[in-house]
Amino acid sequence: MLKEKIGQAVEILKERKIDLWLTFVRETETISDPCLDLIVGTNCTWQSAFMITADGRTIAIVGSLDKERIQQTGLYEDIRIYVDDFGAAFLKALDEIKPKRIAINTSVNDYMADGLTHGMYELLINYTKPTQYQNLFISAEKIVAALRGRKSPMEIELIKKSIELTEKIYANVSPQIKAGRTEKDIADIILKMVVEHGVETAWESNSCPAVFTGPLSAGAHADPTERVIQPGHVLNIDFGVKLNGYCSDIQRTWYILKDDEQVAPDPVQKGFAVLLESVRLAFEAIRPGKLGWEIDKIARDYIVANGYPEYQHGLGHQVGRSTHDGAGMLGPRWERYGDTVFLPLEVGQVYTIEPRLPIEGYGVATVEEMVVIRPNGCKYLSHPQSRLFYTR
Amino acid sequence: MLKEKIGQAVEILKERKIDLWLTFVRETETISDPCLDLIVGTNCTWQSAFMITADGRTIAIVGSLDKERIQQTGLYEDIRIYVDDFGAAFLKALDEIKPKRIAINTSVNDYMADGLTHGMYELLINYTKPTQYQNLFISAEKIVAALRGRKSPMEIELIKKSIELTEKIYANVSPQIKAGRTEKDIADIILKMVVEHGVETAWESNSCPAVFTGPLSAGAHADPTERVIQPGHVLNIDFGVKLNGYCSDIQRTWYILKDDEQVAPDPVQKGFAVLLESVRLAFEAIRPGKLGWEIDKIARDYIVANGYPEYQHGLGHQVGRSTHDGAGMLGPRWERYGDTVFLPLEVGQVYTIEPRLPIEGYGVATVEEMVVIRPNGCKYLSHPQSRLFYTR
Repeated sequence: MLKEKIGQAVEILKERKIDLWLTFVRETETISDPCLDLIVGTNCTWQSAFMITADGRTIAIVGSLDKERIQQTGLYEDIRIYVDDFGAAFLKALDEIKPKRIAINTSVNDYMADGLTHGMYELLINYTKPTQYQNLFISAEKIVAALRGRKSPMEIELIKKSIELTEKIYANVSPQIKAGRTEKDIADIILKMVVEHGVETAWESNSCPAVFTGPLSAGAHADPTERVIQPGHVLNIDFGVKLNGYCSDIQRTWYILKDDEQVAPDPVQKGFAVLLESVRLAFEAIRPGKLGWEIDKIARDYIVANGYPEYQHGLGHQVGRSTHDGAGMLGPRWERYGDTVFLPLEVGQVYTIEPRLPIEGYGVATVEEMVVIRPNGCKYLSHPQSRLFYTR
Repeated sequence: MLKEKIGQAVEILKERKIDLWLTFVRETETISDPCLDLIVGTNCTWQSAFMITADGRTIAIVGSLDKERIQQTGLYEDIRIYVDDFGAAFLKALDEIKPKRIAINTSVNDYMADGLTHGMYELLINYTKPTQYQNLFISAEKIVAALRGRKSPMEIELIKKSIELTEKIYANVSPQIKAGRTEKDIADIILKMVVEHGVETAWESNSCPAVFTGPLSAGAHADPTERVIQPGHVLNIDFGVKLNGYCSDIQRTWYILKDDEQVAPDPVQKGFAVLLESVRLAFEAIRPGKLGWEIDKIARDYIVANGYPEYQHGLGHQVGRSTHDGAGMLGPRWERYGDTVFLPLEVGQVYTIEPRLPIEGYGVATVEEMVVIRPNGCKYLSHPQSRLFYTR
């Protein structure tokens, strides 16, 4: 899989006319560059450079103690070791490659392409100070976005498997959502299933699953509380697993029926219908070349036009080896999203669609689906929630 | 524990006459700042600032969706949220604090103080460009080194518990080290015990434990292989656990007796004796105020004087919440260690002592002990290996 990704990186370098992509890291157990996941797959201790060139060379410069584990990956043809002086080995490699531009993992906008720390950046500048190389550094954000975003068929299959397991767990937990239990109870039931399946949660397990019940429930990203599920609550769960290195991220909504109710009251039905329609409108609009903010605006405007406050986040993010997989984003043109909402959508990207709206007096309605972009539009990877789930 | 650490940070800011320490992060599940472990203890998604001032104020500026989880930590008195524009909220806070210097997590030398990415650094510069603040940034490395290095009595107790469990696991695995088993077999036995105790390994489990047997064994940091343990091998293991958030890191060495042997042959005995003596000499020399390289040199010189090649790494590193806990280091004056070997040792720091030497034809001898620095010297936290362990 990583070999496939390195091959893809070489193609992207050619396409972008960049001769060298440099990933520069140290002590990666403590402070890792998200790109290591794609092109190294193990950790290193001392300062280490992983260099991929447009003509297909793969060079690793690592401390002597890290040599074996990099060799064991089989990913780098040319492994050079040093004991005391990284800089000398590094400059020697640059002299051989003679790059015109050196892409490094730094980005104001995309955290996935921003693994180079400022201290390491200063080290790079120090090493290259006496040479012309110090003027050649550019951001690798375009390379990283393409490499991470364009999922190979094998990657799509792995994401599907991850979604499948998440949906199975949802199906099993659904009958156990009952008035009288707490948010924490439901989270514990789900986490037990996660352990039984021998997988990890898609994000840290104190907020995965996130469970929110009733009108006083917290905003997203909060941990499950002792709040008790009660009849008349809208309850939603945000959950995913990481299976074979790939994540899923799905939200579902339930209504807890009162004794005398067979269906949810009108405001809940209306709110949920508006929510589903906003998903459908966004889904229909997605196609390669569209910009992220255009898709977000469609769902956002529809929700606001129907009298609900707009959601305080983006409509969707990419999913892959990480739950939040960086780069292009279906989101509003807010300062905090930088340029990520202005990137054209690309074939092979996997996005969530996850609007949200509050239903006054009942709780928050959310769904989160996952789609993959295809040449003429997009396709659901999840089985979309098409009606409110009921329980008592 | 984190509350204690934040209190300690305020004291260090006063001592260093720095009015503001700023930790600036985003998407910390994917790309984390090692300082979060000490002063936040949870993750955040959007750009987030954690500000601690010398006069004891604690301010967090976080995205609206992250508010609840930061509140749940109870660590920040003043939590400010934003939806679209981080910069405005950030500048407003600076205007209130009116700092003369702003310490940020960037360091050429110490990766533990280098959690700010270069992209985030550029964002900081962009936000503060119209103001005088952009000239006030300094490295927080002295703050981080003191905060991480000076262990409180409670932290020392937790490290001791972690060591205790590691030593217990070593005692249990020792009788199972037998000729005919492979490095991987031994690693699996240890990992099973780790799971049984419900803890994590101190570093990633494919090289924790690291197991090396015989004269052809790999260097440190490589993963256990299918290499078979044979009579006449020197075998060593590098292993530790993370218990309640604190790590241990211990190495032990065995000799596999041949059928007709009751003790190891002379070269093995001599090598191991030289190794132990180098540990003792370093241990005796450690006291507050000494520099890391001075301690390393004592062990290194002794080993070389006895005819062995010098070890290709530092004599010891700090241990705490991470196995490699950053800042001061007992190491040689090599370029790659930067200034970390020139820092004076401080009371409360926990170091490993881990020399290594090859015994030609038999394998590599190592021990790794852990010590805490006290006002008049240092004290073992581990129970030092005082003789070669035998097995068949």
